[in-house]
This record gives sequence, C-alpha cells and structure tokens, in this order.
Amino acid sequence: MNAVDTKLAELGITLPTPAAPVANYVPYVITGNLLVISGQLCFGLDGKLSDSHKGKLGAEIFNEAGLEAARLCAINVLAQAKAALGGDLSRIARCVRLGGFINAVPHFSALPAIMNGASDLMVEVLGDKGRHARSTIGVAELPADAAVEVEAMFEIS
Amino acid sequence: MNAVDTKLAELGITLPTPAAPVANYVPYVITGNLLVISGQLCFGLDGKLSDSHKGKLGAEIFNEAGLEAARLCAINVLAQAKAALGGDLSRIARCVRLGGFINAVPHFSALPAIMNGASDLMVEVLGDKGRHARSTIGVAELPADAAVEVEAMFEIS
Amino acid sequence: MNAVDTKLAELGITLPTPAAPVANYVPYVITGNLLVISGQLCFGLDGKLSDSHKGKLGAEIFNEAGLEAARLCAINVLAQAKAALGGDLSRIARCVRLGGFINAVPHFSALPAIMNGASDLMVEVLGDKGRHARSTIGVAELPADAAVEVEAMFEIS
Repeated sequence: MNAVDTKLAELGITLPTPAAPVANYVPYVITGNLLVISGQLCFGLDGKLSDSHKGKLGAEIFNEAGLEAARLCAINVLAQAKAALGGDLSRIARCVRLGGFINAVPHFSALPAIMNGASDLMVEVLGDKGRHARSTIGVAELPADAAVEVEAMFEIS
Repeated sequence: MNAVDTKLAELGITLPTPAAPVANYVPYVITGNLLVISGQLCFGLDGKLSDSHKGKLGAEIFNEAGLEAARLCAINVLAQAKAALGGDLSRIARCVRLGGFINAVPHFSALPAIMNGASDLMVEVLGDKGRHARSTIGVAELPADAAVEVEAMFEIS
Repeated sequence: MNAVDTKLAELGITLPTPAAPVANYVPYVITGNLLVISGQLCFGLDGKLSDSHKGKLGAEIFNEAGLEAARLCAINVLAQAKAALGGDLSRIARCVRLGGFINAVPHFSALPAIMNGASDLMVEVLGDKGRHARSTIGVAELPADAAVEVEAMFEIS
C-alpha cells in the first residue's frame, strides 16, 4: 500500500471498477511519460449515473450536486489511471491538466466553483503532485445527459 | 504503398487534399514525437461542407448524417496527418487522443454514438494503433455551422 | 531584453500581472519540454473583466469586441508563459496548440473570425514560432460570463 493508496483510504474513497468503453476507443493511452485519460462522466461507485448527477447546472441540478458530480468524475479519472499504471498510483509524477466540461444552461457562469469538485479531489489525493493546469467550459450537452465530464493528462514515471 | 495506404484503398477511402487554414494558424504541429492536428470540420472529399453535414444534431440533422459527418472529420484528420508526415501514414505509432465536438441542441445526449463515426474510421484504417483516448462534448455552435469537429493527437515515429 | 520582449514593446503590449488561480489548480504546468497553460479569460491589463468583453457573441457582444477579447486571452496566455519561464519568453520554441472557447449563441457560427484575435497576436509576438494548431468551438457558457477563453500548449527549450 503506497502513499496514494493510504491517502485514498484515509479519505474513505474506494476507486470504482473503471468503466469500459463501449466503442472503438479506450479509456487511456500512454505515450512516452504522458498518460492521457478519456473524458470521464460522473458515474457513481456502482457504475451508474445517478439522477442527482444528470441534467444541466442552473436548470435540473444546482451547486452542491454539481460539485459532487465533478468529484465523481475525478474519482473515475483516478480509477482509470490506476488501471493504466498496473495498480500503482504512486507512478503519477504530476497531474498536468484537467479539462472540465460542465453541462450548463447558457446563463450559468459559476462554472469554476463546480469544477473545484474535481480539482480539490485531485489535490486531496495526490498532494502537490495533484496541482494541475485546468480549462473549464460550459457545454450544451454531455453524453447520457451527465452533469459533468472531466478529461486528464498525467506525467508518469 | 504501405499497410495504411493499402487499408485505405481496401476501404475505398480517398484522402482529400487537406484544407489550408485561412488565418495565422496551421493544420498541424509536430513537437518531439507528438503530432497535434487542428480541429477538422466535416468537409467532404470535394473540400466543401455539404448541407447534409451542417446544423445541429437533434434539430437540422440526425443520427446517420451525424455519424457520416464524424467519419468525414476523421478522414480529414488523416489527410492532415499524411501531409504532416511527408505522405507516410505508416509513421503513426498510435492515435493518442481524439477530441469530438458535436454541434447539438441542449437535449441531444446521444453524443457518443455520433462520435463513433470518427473512432470507428480510425480503427478501420489504423487497426489497434487507431485505438485512442477520447472526449466527446456537445457544443453550442461550430465554425461554419458544421455538425461535427474533431481534433487529434498522434504519437509518431 | 530578448527579441520577444522587443517585439512586445514595438507592439505596445504590456503583459499584465498574471491572474492567480483561486482554487486547487495552477496557471501552468511544465512536463518535459511542454508547457501547458490553463484556460485564460479575457481579463484586461488591470486584471478586470470589462463589461465590453462579457456575454455571448451574437447577443450581448459582436465581432470587434469578440476579436479584442480573444486578443486579451492570448496576452494573458503569454503573461502566464512568461511567469512559467522565469521571465524569459525567448525559451518558447513553438506555440504548439491553442484551444479557443467562444461564448456564443447557438446560431453564431463566425467563430474562427473571433479566435483570429488570439492567433494573430501569437504570430505578431512570436513570429513563425507562434504558428499553432488550433481548435475553435462555441460554448454554452464560460466562467464569469467571459466572451472568450483560450488555453495553450507550448514547446519550450
């Protein structure tokens, strides 16, 4: 059990079985020392998209649920990273970038506050290695009407 | 004629003359062994945007045309890659990532099914080297009201 | 004063004090010889978001203000790059990619013309090293209702 696993346990976070893609793409690709993770939706630990994490920020769902959805996306990103790294999250040298896509109505501009759910999780689990560059945008729609999608790039050793 | 050219011929795919950018950006940049391709629209082989590939998924156009539009974007990505690699697509070691932007109305959530048009093409042409990480989002609008835009990153040798 | 600083002076561009992130993310990350910059909004030199650079293209604001907003995003990208590079912008070997997010109503498709404000600035300042791959999309909303957001990746030496 490495330091990242210990931190996950302390935080009470169980990484879910990562979702398998249902098409001709894969959840992650490693190129050189970069690990690129496909956009992850806010599936719960049971692998299902809860009704409380579906729909648009500013319409069907609001701040607290959105924050939770973003956090779930980040947990799913870590689950994919763990699978990519043969189970060893201590091989993450740095979270380089998160891309945050928020399913939002056109007048919902408090997007960064939602995306903080993902950013905070990354730093809680990885410490300073979790501090990342980030772009947050509000989108017209997301797959399965998920509230949030997060993609990631890591530097690995 | 390398293996990728042979596969393109088998599939009956002729890569178009890649679109030249009309501004201060370029269709691709190579950095180290990464090839980054600008977002490609669903222009046809004649270099024109067909009316059947314009407009929003869920309003002006529907599933089959959207799938075809995504496939065209991927063909244009490959055309740019070929230009970037001096005509030699066998230098592609891996399709690392596709970013799929679907021009969609706010209630059209079947976005992955549309983006499969691009993902499937990549694997048809490149085999396992074509399996990529992917993010798919629904956007409010795209350049020229195109139905789909796809950007890409490849690892090259 | 290196060549890039001289060019900035010639153009009469003063880089602002780069905005500090207000959360668990950072404005940039360097991995290998890649510099990844977080999405930058169109804050002015005073660090404030002017009312003339807020709102949606095609509704509250129009072409000239949008172009100016995109240019401001690119200036903020360069300000972050300068901070990342210890003040030495001559370490930029290439602007690899810009991602342009335009806050737009669903029928505003003249997105590339807006994003040219960022692309043109990059080439004005960096010359041929400023020519980049680019993806431009119209989004439902942006943080703080900014008109434009631009993210960037540079190759550095």
